[in-house]
Amino acid sequence: MNIEQEITHRAASIEERIHPYMPTEPGLQQTVIDAMDYSVFAGGKRLRPMLMEASYRMFGGTEDTVEPFMAAIEMIHTYSLVHDDLPAMDNDEYRRGKKTTHAKYGEAMAILAGDALLNRAYETVAQAMLAHPEDSRLMRAFAILAEKAGIYGMVGGQTVDVESEKKGQEIGREKLDFIYRLKTGALLEASLVIGAVLAGASEEEAGRMEQAGTKLGLAFQIKDDILDVTSTMEVLGKPIGSDTRNEKSTYVTFEGLEQAQKDVKALSEEAVSILDGVSGEHDFLRELFLYLIGREK
Amino acid sequence: MNIEQEITHRAASIEERIHPYMPTEPGLQQTVIDAMDYSVFAGGKRLRPMLMEASYRMFGGTEDTVEPFMAAIEMIHTYSLVHDDLPAMDNDEYRRGKKTTHAKYGEAMAILAGDALLNRAYETVAQAMLAHPEDSRLMRAFAILAEKAGIYGMVGGQTVDVESEKKGQEIGREKLDFIYRLKTGALLEASLVIGAVLAGASEEEAGRMEQAGTKLGLAFQIKDDILDVTSTMEVLGKPIGSDTRNEKSTYVTFEGLEQAQKDVKALSEEAVSILDGVSGEHDFLRELFLYLIGREK
Repeated sequence: MNIEQEITHRAASIEERIHPYMPTEPGLQQTVIDAMDYSVFAGGKRLRPMLMEASYRMFGGTEDTVEPFMAAIEMIHTYSLVHDDLPAMDNDEYRRGKKTTHAKYGEAMAILAGDALLNRAYETVAQAMLAHPEDSRLMRAFAILAEKAGIYGMVGGQTVDVESEKKGQEIGREKLDFIYRLKTGALLEASLVIGAVLAGASEEEAGRMEQAGTKLGLAFQIKDDILDVTSTMEVLGKPIGSDTRNEKSTYVTFEGLEQAQKDVKALSEEAVSILDGVSGEHDFLRELFLYLIGREK
Repeated sequence: MNIEQEITHRAASIEERIHPYMPTEPGLQQTVIDAMDYSVFAGGKRLRPMLMEASYRMFGGTEDTVEPFMAAIEMIHTYSLVHDDLPAMDNDEYRRGKKTTHAKYGEAMAILAGDALLNRAYETVAQAMLAHPEDSRLMRAFAILAEKAGIYGMVGGQTVDVESEKKGQEIGREKLDFIYRLKTGALLEASLVIGAVLAGASEEEAGRMEQAGTKLGLAFQIKDDILDVTSTMEVLGKPIGSDTRNEKSTYVTFEGLEQAQKDVKALSEEAVSILDGVSGEHDFLRELFLYLIGREK
């Protein structure tokens, strides 16, 4: 398997299948409909829906009930980026080489587009449930999604991240772990668990997928910190050393480069070993894990 | 019935019953938990949960399954106010005599608190569904809530409202109707319909409650426009004539004061007559409708 090709191929397929869940009916509120569309289709690896679908297939899922949830988690991920980029938050004008939503549509429309995407995620889930009222797995998946996206999940992590940056203070190790676990980790966990639950995995299996997601999320972010120190601007496509310049505490600051590299390796092995311990074909998922942790950008 | 006393009494009871659905577990994300709490409990008439509960009782509902939905719609209403007040939107420093969320907690925390409230609404609904997995009425109520709060509901109305204000342009009658129907109307409709659906009302009955909500919402907002012209600052508690100063097109601008007053009366009578045409005890609901439309502030 050429994993890069496979990822590109799957991402394209996911984009195509997510699109119908976006609002398509035109109306006087067209600006925000356009801004939602722009935000979701401005690129991105489609990592969360990709993980969700792979987990769903791993546990023998064959239906398309996973699709609305793939769309929903990508909408939630996107809304979080749109709001994160706002002037009052990270104040980013560009993301992946394209103008951020507020840079293109203005701040008010970006706030509303983010709100509309978050709400649309649940509207999508609600429609899926109405179409399969007898399938209680959708209900569990909904509850997991809402919890992981919420104040004790992703938004909780964003809060501490924003506060830490604003105060320009030394961030303690406890806060760093909290941010890493929730800001990115929570939705990665949700992706793997929801895929498993929708395919009928047991509570125990779903729990293991959650653990794998935790390790993956942590490894992914430590890798980010490492790349900020070791990569080159050419490879990374963005300025390196930005953490150092911003005096930002990272995993590397706390543990040193060498230990950080060891920890990524260990976390990666743990994540894969959890996967290997669960029955179900997961060649792609294993490769995807290793790719995400081994990437050079 | 002294309707003002009854409303005050019910609002207090609703606040007490909504509270347990808010996040209570402390954590490093405490600022946003506090900001959510501040936003929801900074006052307010609790109109939407009050309408929902009254509609639920009207159709014979006796359980407490309506409570999580009452909490959810109040969270959604509140998040929309928090985001509406932001500097990039209406830029309001005070609401109901208290500092707005961003004025108290900063802009970033207000954005996150709004996001967290919207998400919490659905988390609350998800938990209610897990507690009553056999009750398909909750599923329908969830779908109605998500639709009415979304891009073809409330957020759609907010979009056109914000755009009209920003451009300082003459707003056409079509846009005014669109804003009135969706920005406030959609959640009032949702309140009445969800109450009915949760109590087991028929599709036809739910449809009538939706119509009543549409009329009520429109009358409520035309009344707002009228009060901006006819009331005094002492009574209204906020500057009058602000629409005129801001050269804002309102229903009164289009139809004139006299016609607007006639239309409020007609809409009010229609709303009440729809109510009267549906079987079920609805003395309080009728009084509440008349009070909301007849209010002098």
